[in-house]
Amino acid sequence: MLFQKVSIIGFGLIGSSLARAIRKHGMAEEIVCVDRSVDVCKKAVKLKLCDKADTDLRKGVDGADLVVLAVPVGACGTVAEQIRYSLKEGAIVTDVGSVKGAVVNAVQPHIPDKAHFIPAHPIAGTEHSGPEAGFAELFEGRWCIITPLPDSDIQKVEKVTQLWEGCGSVIEIMDVKRHDLVLGITSHLPHLIAYTIVGTATDLEEDTQDDVIKFSASGFRDFTRIAASDPVMWRDVFLNNREAVLEILQRFTEDLTAMQRAIRKEDGDYLQAMFTRTRDIRRKVIEAGQAGDASPTQASEAAQPSGDRQKASGSAG
Amino acid sequence: MLFQKVSIIGFGLIGSSLARAIRKHGMAEEIVCVDRSVDVCKKAVKLKLCDKADTDLRKGVDGADLVVLAVPVGACGTVAEQIRYSLKEGAIVTDVGSVKGAVVNAVQPHIPDKAHFIPAHPIAGTEHSGPEAGFAELFEGRWCIITPLPDSDIQKVEKVTQLWEGCGSVIEIMDVKRHDLVLGITSHLPHLIAYTIVGTATDLEEDTQDDVIKFSASGFRDFTRIAASDPVMWRDVFLNNREAVLEILQRFTEDLTAMQRAIRKEDGDYLQAMFTRTRDIRRKVIEAGQAGDASPTQASEAAQPSGDRQKASGSAG
Repeated sequence: MLFQKVSIIGFGLIGSSLARAIRKHGMAEEIVCVDRSVDVCKKAVKLKLCDKADTDLRKGVDGADLVVLAVPVGACGTVAEQIRYSLKEGAIVTDVGSVKGAVVNAVQPHIPDKAHFIPAHPIAGTEHSGPEAGFAELFEGRWCIITPLPDSDIQKVEKVTQLWEGCGSVIEIMDVKRHDLVLGITSHLPHLIAYTIVGTATDLEEDTQDDVIKFSASGFRDFTRIAASDPVMWRDVFLNNREAVLEILQRFTEDLTAMQRAIRKEDGDYLQAMFTRTRDIRRKVIEAGQAGDASPTQASEAAQPSGDRQKASGSAG
Repeated sequence: MLFQKVSIIGFGLIGSSLARAIRKHGMAEEIVCVDRSVDVCKKAVKLKLCDKADTDLRKGVDGADLVVLAVPVGACGTVAEQIRYSLKEGAIVTDVGSVKGAVVNAVQPHIPDKAHFIPAHPIAGTEHSGPEAGFAELFEGRWCIITPLPDSDIQKVEKVTQLWEGCGSVIEIMDVKRHDLVLGITSHLPHLIAYTIVGTATDLEEDTQDDVIKFSASGFRDFTRIAASDPVMWRDVFLNNREAVLEILQRFTEDLTAMQRAIRKEDGDYLQAMFTRTRDIRRKVIEAGQAGDASPTQASEAAQPSGDRQKASGSAG
C-alpha cells in the first residue's frame, strides 16, 4: 500500500471524498478522520469512511505517514502549529487549498525538519458541503496541481503524486506564485465577478428582481450557480490570494472601463474588434479539450485534462 | 391557418428557424424568404424552407399579412423605411431583436397607419449562424417577450402571441423599457463581462495564457463560450441598449469597487456577508425553475419557462 496510516484533518466534502477514494483504491492500511466536530466524527464512523475518528488533533495524527490538511485555508496555519510536535519521522503533510502562497507561509514554519510539507491543490469540488456530500469519484479526470517547495524531497513529492493519480487525477507540477496567478484568473476572479453581479441584481427593486430571476438567461443563471459557493471558503480564498486577485482585478477593471467608454461614445468599431478577438481564446480552449461539458455539474471547479472525460450525471441546479 | 403569407426578412439562424417552425406547425399558407444575399435565397429554396425567395424587399413583402424583421437590430430601421409603401392593409410587422427601445424608435415612424408594428423578442439562439443552422425546435420551451405599443391593436397582438405559442414558446407581455432593463441585466451585462474577462486573459504573457487555457475552470470556460458570440450582433446590442447597459454597468462597477476595497483592507466580514446574500438569489432561481441545465447547449440565451424542459443535445463546445 502507498501509505500505512492517513490522517485527514477536516472531513468535509474534499476530505471525505479523499477518504472514500483512498479506500476504493486501496491506498492506505488505515484512515483516521480528524475533525473538531463530534457530529462529523460520528458520521464518518457511521458511514464507514474511516477506521477511527478523533476530535483531538495531536492524537489524530499520531503515527500517520500522511497528514492531509483539508480545513479552510485560513485555518491551516493554526492546525499545523498544533500538530507540529506530534508528527512522525518522515511524515508527509499535504493540503488541498485553492490558494498556495498563503498556505505555505502559514504552514511551513511549523513543519519540523523530520517531516515534509508538500502543498497540493486538487481542482475539484461541488456546491455542496459536509462528509455526506463526498464521493470517491470526485477527483477522477481532474487536474491536481502540486507545488513542491524548492527543497522538497523528490521521493515525498512522488508519493503525493501517486496519491492523487490513484484518485484518478492528472498531475501538474507548478510553482506557488504561478499557481496563485493562474487560479486567480481562471477561478478566483470569475467567482468574484459572479458574486458581484448577483449582488447587483439583488439590489434592484423587487419587481425588477422577479423579472431578472424569471428571465435569467444562461449567462446570469451560471453566475448564480457560481455565487452559491461556500461563503467562508471563498472569503478565505480572497483574503489569502489578495495580491494576485487585486492585480488581475485591476487589469479587468481597466478593460471594463474601456468597454464602458466605447459604449458611451458609441464606438462600434472598438466593440466589434474586441468581440472578434475573444473568439480566438475560445478556439484555443476548445482545442485544449477544455470545452467539454461547459458546466460540469459534479464539480464547480473542473478543468478537465481532456475534454469530455467526465460527463456529469444528475444536476447541480 | 394563422397567416396567409409570411415574409421573413433576414434568413439567418432565427429567421430560418422561424420558417421551419411555421412550416412544421402549419401556421401559414405561404412563406417568403427575403434576404439581400443571393446565396442565402438560393439555399433557402434548395432546403425547401420557403415557397419563394427574393432579394428585393418590396417584392418580398408584397401581399404578406405578416412581415418578420429578422435582420440585425441596427438594420431594422432601414428595412422598415424601404418596405413602408409595400405593406398590405392590416399587415402585421414584427421583429425578433434582443433590444426593443431602439428598434421601436427606428421602425415605428415608418409603419403606415394601415399596418401594425408589434415588437417581440424570442429568447433563443445558439452560437451558430446562417440558414443551414436553423431548426424548428429552437423556440420550444423558451420565453418570448412581446412588447406591444400603447396603441397596439389587441387582435394583432393576439396573432403574434399565437405565432410564438405555435412555435412552442411561452409568452410574456412587457413594456419596452422594462424589457431593455431586464435583458440588460440578465443577458447584456453578463455578455459584456464575459467579453471583457476573456479579453483581459488574452492580454497576458503567452505562457501564463497557456496555463489559463489549460486550467480554465468551469467559471472561465463558461465565459469563453459566451464571448464567442457573434461580434456584429453584440456590437449592435450594446449600441442599441446603451442607456440600460450603462446604468447597470455603473451599478456593477460600484459594487465591484466595494469588493476590491474589502479585499485590499482584508475585510473578511464584508466579503462573507456579501457572499452569503447571493445564495438567496440562487435559491429563488432554482425555485423559479430556472436552474435547469446550467448551460443549455442549444441556446445561448435560454431562460426556460420551466426548469429542465429542454435538455440540450450535443455540444456547443
